[in-house]
Formats: sequence, structure tokens, C-alpha cells
Amino acid sequence: MSLKTESFDEASATRIVIERNAGCPDPRLREIMAVLVRHLHEAVRELQLTQQEWRGAIDFLTATGQICSDRRQEFILLSDTLGVSMLVDAINHRKAETATPSTVLGPFHVADAPAMQSGDTISRDGRGSPLVVHGAVLDIDGRPIEGATLDVWQTSEDGYYDTQDPTQPDMNLRGVFQSGADGGFWFRSIVPASYPIPSDGPVGRMLKALARHPMRPAHIHFIVSAPGYQPVTTHIFVEGDPYLESDAVFGVKDALVLPFPMVDDTARGERFGVPSRHHEAEVVIRLQ
Amino acid sequence: MSLKTESFDEASATRIVIERNAGCPDPRLREIMAVLVRHLHEAVRELQLTQQEWRGAIDFLTATGQICSDRRQEFILLSDTLGVSMLVDAINHRKAETATPSTVLGPFHVADAPAMQSGDTISRDGRGSPLVVHGAVLDIDGRPIEGATLDVWQTSEDGYYDTQDPTQPDMNLRGVFQSGADGGFWFRSIVPASYPIPSDGPVGRMLKALARHPMRPAHIHFIVSAPGYQPVTTHIFVEGDPYLESDAVFGVKDALVLPFPMVDDTARGERFGVPSRHHEAEVVIRLQ
Ligand SMILES: [Cu+2]
Ligand SMILES: [Fe+3]
Ligand SMILES: [Fe+3]
Repeated sequence: MSLKTESFDEASATRIVIERNAGCPDPRLREIMAVLVRHLHEAVRELQLTQQEWRGAIDFLTATGQICSDRRQEFILLSDTLGVSMLVDAINHRKAETATPSTVLGPFHVADAPAMQSGDTISRDGRGSPLVVHGAVLDIDGRPIEGATLDVWQTSEDGYYDTQDPTQPDMNLRGVFQSGADGGFWFRSIVPASYPIPSDGPVGRMLKALARHPMRPAHIHFIVSAPGYQPVTTHIFVEGDPYLESDAVFGVKDALVLPFPMVDDTARGERFGVPSRHHEAEVVIRLQ
Repeated sequence: MSLKTESFDEASATRIVIERNAGCPDPRLREIMAVLVRHLHEAVRELQLTQQEWRGAIDFLTATGQICSDRRQEFILLSDTLGVSMLVDAINHRKAETATPSTVLGPFHVADAPAMQSGDTISRDGRGSPLVVHGAVLDIDGRPIEGATLDVWQTSEDGYYDTQDPTQPDMNLRGVFQSGADGGFWFRSIVPASYPIPSDGPVGRMLKALARHPMRPAHIHFIVSAPGYQPVTTHIFVEGDPYLESDAVFGVKDALVLPFPMVDDTARGERFGVPSRHHEAEVVIRLQ
């Protein structure tokens, strides 16, 4: 046995660190650390990172942690804006082509949204362009799923969630619905708006340095679950939104973009309890 | 031009994110982001990271940022314990074989340590095993460098820096020396002790989960500079320390490990102003 320390240099660094972690009793943690160390070292080597750049990275990560609070998770924003969240989502939700694809949960879900009846409105202040959402929950072969739970939330016409905006009533634009015997559901709401992710912190500064905007295209969030099926966390996006091609968090999938046409029809308005001029959207959720 | 969004999936994710950043006006930032995104995505793909593991990583990074303060930099500890700091150091300090190699700066340097004269002691409380450090600053061909500045700092016999330990006098075990006409310098001190890096935070929990100890082998820090030469940030390590093979931050290099023999010699003790029984160390710093 040599008494010499093995020389830690550009060639040996990665192997030495991985060997040092080899005594980890948890095989999955050992694997995670080995893979992370290897790719992190590769990136440093490939970039020939300077000490000033290294210090910049330390300071960026520190600021990202320090702005986090009960109400803000800047590391999730960082993961989102680097496409990591959607990549993890893709890896963990491989599905049949006909199943509704998942997308990011986002930071604005609340666990205790109110249970509602078919046809109820989730708009508690009536502000915005009236919208009727009709839909059905089906299995991947097209058979209706009765009693599926649909947890729904969206922004106001100004692009704010109730939790961000003291002018909105509590639980505004949130509700939990059940599908009927034919898999069908419907509710009333308003047309959601595109909005920026929080951009006054380190991630906002990063996007600015990259000449990227912080906008997300208008969408309505859904978590749909039913006994015996995989739950899906997803959105429906408003066709024609200018940010569909450049969602700051890479959440858009073609199958989730739906028309929200303007309808001008007094009979339909009366039937659904909305003005003659209103928008409608038709959603089919397919669970696997 | 297609109106469709390109599908963001496991295969396309990395390319889509890199293309989104392609408008960055700073070519180096663009390169850094592209390389980081590529290696980060590769790691996620290779690990088939679960959403629970992803959330664990988010929470770990958040906690690492949140424990940082004016007095603590946990992301530097993380970089150190993953070998990233020493890898960046190696990349940025390629040198002649004969030059003194660099190692980590560590978090305990202070900018305003007191200027001292040859032979002064940096121990302001006299606690510990007396030590005499003799040395010389040379160029890589062995010629003496006069007027080099040596900024020196170390722990107490208990393994604490003055800034960590209210029982030590201010600026204890710190001093700035100059080399003489022959490149020589000497000072008195005490034998430093091995010590743990801060282990009560996320990095300490990580080391514990990896079955690693948080110890650094005993060392004295030096920053040596002279006009016309590259400054070197380095340590000298105490030969025989039990942690030389397993420094928590991978800072040990063979050329930096020196004997600190015990001497029992009344004449030498009197000559250097230390007890008969004392330790001595002989350091040669070679600047390129
Ligand atoms: Cu890689
Ligand atoms: Fe949203
Ligand atoms: Fe130290």
C-alpha cells in the first residue's frame, strides 16, 4: 500500500470523488451521486470554467436559495426554465399516444379547493370574458369514466391566481368537479390570461441575460384522477395565444392546445347561464 | 412555417432548450448555458430521475442556499465536497512541475491580517505546541525572490480559526510576512490541528448519507505573491495526519505534505525564542 495520496488532477478528479462516495450504503443514492458528479465535472472540464465564472455560479445558486420562501420556490422556476421539470415529467409519464399528456404542476395549486356541482362557475367575482367548458373523461379506448375527479384552477383576466392577488376573493377560479355517468362534466368560468413567471429574482435575471421573456401562454390547469387509472396533471392552452411557441417553462404540447371560440348565441347563453356573447371550450381527458 | 409547437419530449428536450437560449447576446454565457443544460439533461436521462428524487434535489438546493449567510457559504462547501472546487483550481492553475501547486482557498481567509516582521509569532495567546516555520520563496529555477508577500493563517490546537472561536484573540494565528534578500522568511506559531468542515447543514447531512467524514487534515494556509509572478493560494499539510488520504474537500497534494518534526534542542529553542521541545517545519514556495 502506498502512503501517497493519489494525485487529484484534471484526469483523476472524477474517479477519486466517485470512489470516495463508494461506501454509501444506499445504492440508489450512490448511483445518483456518481452520475451527477460525472456530468458536473464533465461540464466544468468542457467549459474550462474560470474561477470567476465558478464564483458567479456559487453566487447565483445562493441567491436562488435565499429568495425561496413559503410562497416562492425559485429552484423549481430554475428547473422549469431549463426544461428539467418537463424532462422529468416526460420520463415519469410515458403513456399511450391516445392518453392525455401531462405537463408541469406549477406553483399555484392549492390542496383544498372547493367541491362544486356540474355547471357551477369557478369565477367568484364575475370579472372577465365568460367561458363555458364542456368535457368528458374517457379511457384510452374511448369508454366514459364515471366519477372521475377534476381539480381545476386558472388565472384571472389579468393573469393572476387568487393567491397572488389580494383583489380576488379567496378560492377564486378554483374548483373540484366530478364526471357524470357518461364521463361528462361542465363548468362556467372566464377566459384565462397569459402571465409572467416571477421575474424579479435570480431566474428572472437569468432569462433577461438570455434575452428570453418570462411569459406563459394562457391556460387552465387540471388534475384528473379516477380509481384504477393513472392521474394526470395537465393544462389546456388557449389556441392563438402569442406565447404558445415560447412558453418560458416549455409546458406546451400540441394535444393540449384547444380552440376557445367566441359564440354569440342567445339560446346557448340562456341554456348555460352566460351572456349571449361568450367563449366555449370542449375538453376530452383520456386516462390510462 | 409550421404553426405547431415542436414536441418537447425526452429526445428533443435538450435541443429545444438550447435553441431557446440561442438569442443570448453574450457568446460565453450562451456556451455556458448550452453545456450546463446538456450535461444536466444527460444526468436526468441517465438516472431516469423520479419526480420524488427531483423534489429531493430541489429541497436540498433550497436548504443549501438558505443556510448561507455572511459567515457561511454552504454552496462552496458543496462544490468542495464534490471535488468541483479542486477541479476548477486545477484547470486554472496549470503550472510547471517545479512550481508549488495550488489548493483551495477555504472560507477562513481575512483580507486585513496584520503585517509582521521575520521571526514574529502569529500565536497571540501562546496556546498550543510551539512551532517554528522556516522557508524560502524561489522561482521555478531555484533563484530567490526578495520581497514576496506571504499571507498565512491556520487553526488553533483545537482546530478552530479565530473567526469561529470567541475564546481566541482577534487575528490570532494570522499574519503577513515578506521574504528577505535571500528569499528567506521565518515565523513562530503553534502546530495546527485537523478540523471538520461545518457539518450541521445540508452538506453535512449529505456527507453522512454518503458515509463520509467531514474532516480536513491539519494544515497552514498560504497566499504567496511577488511582482512578476503568478500568486499561489496553497496549504502546507502536517505529515502523518490521519486525514491526509481522505480530506473532505480533496485539497491534499503530495508536494504540500511536509514533516513537522519534534525537536528537543535548547540552543535552537533559545535561538528561535521557543522552548527546547518544539516542532519545526521547512517550507519552500516556488512561484512561476
Ligand atoms: Cu454530461
Ligand atoms: Fe399556471
Ligand atoms: Fe483551513
